[in-house]
Amino acid sequence: MTLADLPAWSGDETEITRTAELPGFMDAIAVVDRVAVVAEEMNHHPDIDIRWRTLTFRCTTHSAGKVTERDYELARRIDEIVANQS
Amino acid sequence: MTLADLPAWSGDETEITRTAELPGFMDAIAVVDRVAVVAEEMNHHPDIDIRWRTLTFRCTTHSAGKVTERDYELARRIDEIVANQS
Repeated sequence: MTLADLPAWSGDETEITRTAELPGFMDAIAVVDRVAVVAEEMNHHPDIDIRWRTLTFRCTTHSAGKVTERDYELARRIDEIVANQS
Repeated sequence: MTLADLPAWSGDETEITRTAELPGFMDAIAVVDRVAVVAEEMNHHPDIDIRWRTLTFRCTTHSAGKVTERDYELARRIDEIVANQS
């Protein structure tokens, strides 16, 4: 997987990021909760910024100092969750 | 209430902020969930940054362009939630 497979995401070799605007604040929190479960399962945690109903996610692999396949997989799963909540 | 009554918080007339490090990531998410319920009840939503098990909260009243009593009240309730989760 590469960034080209994740049209909602932008970034470079050091970090990838996407924003998502949900219908309301509690919808945004529901996305955070579902992403948290996936992140804990993967033991790979994105940075998440909550700004009312807009979320920003940032993924990188700190141990590698760069974006890895785990980040692309986490990004893909975040996309699925956002798509199902919007 | 003033900033002096909220020792965990810093800031000025435009914004107040605190960070909280929880025992683990899911503890941090549990705090976010409980703060979200209070924020929705108050119809007053803090900015929240999630960095693994560290949370940063920022409160201001956009409609007033400054920190108001509602921010101090929200801050106080965030402190209660953090204290009960840590």
